[in-house]
Amino acid sequence: MSQPEQTPAESSHELPGGFRYAGATGGIKASGKPDVSLIVSDQPCVAAAVTTTNQVFAAPVQVCRDRSPRSTCRAVITNSGNANACTGQEGYDDAVTMCERVAAMVGCDAEDVLVMSTGVIGHRLPMAKVEKGISLAGEALGDSERHFLAAADAICTTDQFRKNASASFQAGGKTYRIAAMCKGAGMIAPNMATMLGVIVTDFPLTEQSAQTSLRRIVERTFNRVSVDGHTSTNDTVVLLSSGQASDVGSDADNATFIETATDVSLKLAKLLVADGEGAVRFFEVAVDGAASDVDAFEIAKCVAASPLVKTAIQGGDPNWGRIVSAAGYAGPKIEVEKTALSIEGSSVFRDGRPLPFDAAELSGLMKAASEVKLQLVVGSGSGSAKYWSSDLTEDYVRFNSLYTT
Amino acid sequence: MSQPEQTPAESSHELPGGFRYAGATGGIKASGKPDVSLIVSDQPCVAAAVTTTNQVFAAPVQVCRDRSPRSTCRAVITNSGNANACTGQEGYDDAVTMCERVAAMVGCDAEDVLVMSTGVIGHRLPMAKVEKGISLAGEALGDSERHFLAAADAICTTDQFRKNASASFQAGGKTYRIAAMCKGAGMIAPNMATMLGVIVTDFPLTEQSAQTSLRRIVERTFNRVSVDGHTSTNDTVVLLSSGQASDVGSDADNATFIETATDVSLKLAKLLVADGEGAVRFFEVAVDGAASDVDAFEIAKCVAASPLVKTAIQGGDPNWGRIVSAAGYAGPKIEVEKTALSIEGSSVFRDGRPLPFDAAELSGLMKAASEVKLQLVVGSGSGSAKYWSSDLTEDYVRFNSLYTT
Repeated sequence: MSQPEQTPAESSHELPGGFRYAGATGGIKASGKPDVSLIVSDQPCVAAAVTTTNQVFAAPVQVCRDRSPRSTCRAVITNSGNANACTGQEGYDDAVTMCERVAAMVGCDAEDVLVMSTGVIGHRLPMAKVEKGISLAGEALGDSERHFLAAADAICTTDQFRKNASASFQAGGKTYRIAAMCKGAGMIAPNMATMLGVIVTDFPLTEQSAQTSLRRIVERTFNRVSVDGHTSTNDTVVLLSSGQASDVGSDADNATFIETATDVSLKLAKLLVADGEGAVRFFEVAVDGAASDVDAFEIAKCVAASPLVKTAIQGGDPNWGRIVSAAGYAGPKIEVEKTALSIEGSSVFRDGRPLPFDAAELSGLMKAASEVKLQLVVGSGSGSAKYWSSDLTEDYVRFNSLYTT
Repeated sequence: MSQPEQTPAESSHELPGGFRYAGATGGIKASGKPDVSLIVSDQPCVAAAVTTTNQVFAAPVQVCRDRSPRSTCRAVITNSGNANACTGQEGYDDAVTMCERVAAMVGCDAEDVLVMSTGVIGHRLPMAKVEKGISLAGEALGDSERHFLAAADAICTTDQFRKNASASFQAGGKTYRIAAMCKGAGMIAPNMATMLGVIVTDFPLTEQSAQTSLRRIVERTFNRVSVDGHTSTNDTVVLLSSGQASDVGSDADNATFIETATDVSLKLAKLLVADGEGAVRFFEVAVDGAASDVDAFEIAKCVAASPLVKTAIQGGDPNWGRIVSAAGYAGPKIEVEKTALSIEGSSVFRDGRPLPFDAAELSGLMKAASEVKLQLVVGSGSGSAKYWSSDLTEDYVRFNSLYTT
């Protein structure tokens, strides 16, 4: 599912004040595409980060963990083309050096700079090229949409299109803005395409509210999509807020921020899945009636990850047996005699029993849908969750079987 | 990976005494292939069963659970071509009826008959055809290898070849025999190919020792292979012992039995993976150094299930990053700085760092191997485990995307 490069997800950006952006080409990528992305905050800003749960994590992940949340962040530097993962102490030193170079340009402590990397793993960063890119990015900084998009382009690796989204919202009588970018081809590219994301806002947040909010946002968006479930060594999402500490709002305002940022992030998360290599169809698994939201999440994730479900979606096959049985082995307790399934709004299974349906007609609906909807009821509980995934295609296998080491 | 039909896994069977076997064609399968398999014990025998963990389980699974372990079992009746799953109370009644028909032929209580089914789910059994098959099987019973193989053929569905294995062993100065059959195309076939298995032996067991032994055997064999991790609604393995209760042996003898039966079952389990639709390469994941055997099992399973690992195996790509990072997200704690990986005996990663290696040469070794060996060390613990899997190929996707409902 490709998206023309000239049609970004959002054509107009309402950028929050206080940030400048740049993309530059240091030469890390053999392709000569932009590979260094810089975001600078004019004043110390609040920063939070959520990083990969993989125990094998990259050097920049360690740096982000060490330095966030904080209220004095001045920049986020990202390189693409090299993940700086499995590179030991030298790799950690390289990540720190990247921050030092940015700090020298911006005029801040190196500790106030966060760093992210994505690309091949197991290779030292080509630091001369990285530093060249940092210098070029420093010269190219600007606060326009063009600059924001240049920064978004420079974090991409195997992405077929740029991923960005934005929104504004009202809280406490004021208008606030959120703009966000991410990269990733659904964690399915050769050498594991990392998911990286940055969310910038002028909504005021404390360090703690930034961290708590970001975790809630990520849990309901980036953690609800999967192409192949292979968690990268480098996954990182950063939230930056340029709002004034004196303006920190009420809990209600904060809830409005979280809601809007969740919408923005969900747009990006769906773009990640849509860009999955070889993906043709996109589907949503909605689970209701579970004992808890966590149970519903586990069931939705298991259905979304099943290769048999993913190949059925590929073929436009309303194969309810694969879906219901995936719910049955997910782990959480389900009430089989109350289990029901609708595909594209058509009931095919109810009270634990199959219903008659026109398979050819339903297959046609599945093939025509931009996002196939699977609605599962697994009992009479109040737990619910949604999860998004893409189909499994022959192209996925072809791309990932290529000799890449 | 196909195996010529004229070359069964084991050309000579040492069949334990006390059992008769038959395969017959009732007409359940449109193909006209054998679809009813019967095993009769001449005397009441000890029976144990291990069944699917899927909460959506078929009617015959419920019957097996209700009736095992027991010491008065007289027969196991199996049909292929219809799973009798998601068929409600009527399906349960059909499964019971199958047992009643066998009991009437054999002259025993219906409770002393176990039943298994495999095939499409969500459809009532065509009972007239099933009963015809049962009658024909009753007339065809015999204790020769030919009869055993006919029974093994009749449990198959999408299998490309028959799966059977046998062994004999010494315990307490006597020779005992084990013969086993199973079916399944690695749980990857359309409509979920169920894994069914039967192990017969003349080694004497009590109900409890049969149940305990079977669970241990299954955990180290059939539960250690996977093609796509989709647990079927019908998976069942039955163990039958015709040994005399008065001859029940020592713990040491029992351990010898378990060891031999585990070897036999592992042969069958590997045949399941080898028969996975579209599978070209087979691989073994050995994990050592984990905190416990359970941790090692979880890590091995996660590596074996990763689509990125499976596509790398397909391409003969020594992509250590995919393997090490899969260990990192498996869940159990690993010691990254002590993590090491060998592929086909070549060290490619040690002490958490990549090692230089000749990628082209190693790729050649992977492509030539009948079973690619991945050896992971994840720390300094004493936990270890092995897991077996097949590669992910374009053919897998093609077969499973076909419109099958």
